[in-house]
Amino acid sequence: MNAPIALTLGDPAGIGPELAALAWTALRETGPTFFWLGDPALLNDAIPFKLIEGPEDAQDVFSDALPVVPVECLAPVVPGTPDSRNASAVIASIEQAVRYVQSGQAAGITTNPIAKHILASAGFSFPGHTEFLAALCHCDGQEVMMLASPHLRVVPVTIHVSLRQAIESLTTERIVAVTLATHKALQSDFGITQPRLAIAGLNPHAGEEGMMGTEEKTIIGPAIAILKSQGLTVMGPFPPDTMFSATARPGYDAAICMYHDQALIPLKTLDMAEGVNVTIGLPIIRTSPDHGTAFDIAGPVGRSDSQVDPSSLLAALRLADSMSRHKKGDNR
Amino acid sequence: MNAPIALTLGDPAGIGPELAALAWTALRETGPTFFWLGDPALLNDAIPFKLIEGPEDAQDVFSDALPVVPVECLAPVVPGTPDSRNASAVIASIEQAVRYVQSGQAAGITTNPIAKHILASAGFSFPGHTEFLAALCHCDGQEVMMLASPHLRVVPVTIHVSLRQAIESLTTERIVAVTLATHKALQSDFGITQPRLAIAGLNPHAGEEGMMGTEEKTIIGPAIAILKSQGLTVMGPFPPDTMFSATARPGYDAAICMYHDQALIPLKTLDMAEGVNVTIGLPIIRTSPDHGTAFDIAGPVGRSDSQVDPSSLLAALRLADSMSRHKKGDNR
Repeated sequence: MNAPIALTLGDPAGIGPELAALAWTALRETGPTFFWLGDPALLNDAIPFKLIEGPEDAQDVFSDALPVVPVECLAPVVPGTPDSRNASAVIASIEQAVRYVQSGQAAGITTNPIAKHILASAGFSFPGHTEFLAALCHCDGQEVMMLASPHLRVVPVTIHVSLRQAIESLTTERIVAVTLATHKALQSDFGITQPRLAIAGLNPHAGEEGMMGTEEKTIIGPAIAILKSQGLTVMGPFPPDTMFSATARPGYDAAICMYHDQALIPLKTLDMAEGVNVTIGLPIIRTSPDHGTAFDIAGPVGRSDSQVDPSSLLAALRLADSMSRHKKGDNR
Repeated sequence: MNAPIALTLGDPAGIGPELAALAWTALRETGPTFFWLGDPALLNDAIPFKLIEGPEDAQDVFSDALPVVPVECLAPVVPGTPDSRNASAVIASIEQAVRYVQSGQAAGITTNPIAKHILASAGFSFPGHTEFLAALCHCDGQEVMMLASPHLRVVPVTIHVSLRQAIESLTTERIVAVTLATHKALQSDFGITQPRLAIAGLNPHAGEEGMMGTEEKTIIGPAIAILKSQGLTVMGPFPPDTMFSATARPGYDAAICMYHDQALIPLKTLDMAEGVNVTIGLPIIRTSPDHGTAFDIAGPVGRSDSQVDPSSLLAALRLADSMSRHKKGDNR
């Protein structure tokens, strides 16, 4: 039997608590089993919950109640209005989830959305979840973000930096490292024996023979040569605008992209509701929904007029479970 | 009655001649009427054609034969192998088409794809069609590229430059000028009384409060303020990754994008076959298919195993006709 997935608090003023409740309602009969590291007061008694001592109790509880490892919010939670005094609870929930996975008590982590500027104002020094998780695993710099949806898997080589910085920080070494991490993750966690990887260009028309930029020749091309010499199935650099079309997508298992929006524009254009953010390159499995805190539609859990859509969180929980089974060699 | 559309030669070694033949076959009964400025020898006698003196003869001919204003290729044409000795014919075809529109003999131009590096090797100094057409109209710098498809209209503020140069050349003045040109074109050529314009950010998450770039605050935000003060319906700057989703797109008539691929990735991801490239901001109407010369699938016109898909060219011819009718106030 697979260990349960740990679902974190996320920003308590966002839609995270409601997503936890909706996900339990959707999955209680089918699984996968998960537990929530959150403040049970936020559930508003809208669903049954049960406090648990640790992840090992989640399975017995799950069909009757949401299993909760309590993480208390220090300040009153007003849906839609984040409060930096609750940053410590947001962070503690992530830290505890990582410890559970490292000890083998949880199979993986699915993180609810956080508000980076609220955490930053409380002194949190990481640009996002992904980098924080890498630090907790003592794998700084090895973290790689993949976005997976029904139509597409994309992996940006640079992430949460300005577009200007993304260009400055693009190196052959980084492209090679990210592509290798993707290759390994597709083999170990996705069950793809010989992954086919499409490498994007940086510039319009992939530079069009150097007329619109040279990074394809000086940085990306050499990375492709190195990766091919290591036996990987890599193709490119492709003109970025055509490589995500319906006719091009079946030709590869993942697209390696040079910057955040080159990866996320096609994915969210195709699959806004069902995208999953996956952190690869770390010893732990971590997925998250592909949307933010959604403060604008946050409200008390259990209200009748909610617009909250749990599709992406459900996909994230299911993918974390599937990845952990592939990793164990239990591909049922 | 509307004047005919002028279809240019394009690179004769690409799929342009075949597209001309396929488009005539598809449109001969329904219109819109067009004529081809090309070398009739390239048609390979696969369809009936008739040499015409000028555009005014196209209408009478069109239902029986493709009307052709002859433009002779100087070197032998080998499909798939472009030859810079034919650059002069490629260029002459465009120049003659512009003259016909300027004289009122043609309603607009639809251009077949050209190979920019072949033209450049022959001394052509323009980065693309769009800039060349602007020069022919003595409107250098006023040209604006719009891509239109069944799902989306996008307008990149910067076009055929490296991504690095695109960031460097982004200015408040340019965003204002491009957005104003888009607003006017949507009113005059697309029949939209009060266009709604969505302005993209440059950086991931539109800079996320300055944490991932500042151009949203220093360059894009001020442009939006100026445009609003002039009475335009503008919104943004939006996070680039979410603004093209199925739920976001109905909120605007066109998206103003900061660089080539920010505009073209979502459009081609959604509508690879039916996108149309539209040049706005010029006194002439010009559309073109949203693909290249396709040398890899070019072959003799009329062969049975062709993979050439004329969908985008058909959409381009229809849109040029529709725009010219809106411009005349003849919106049938």
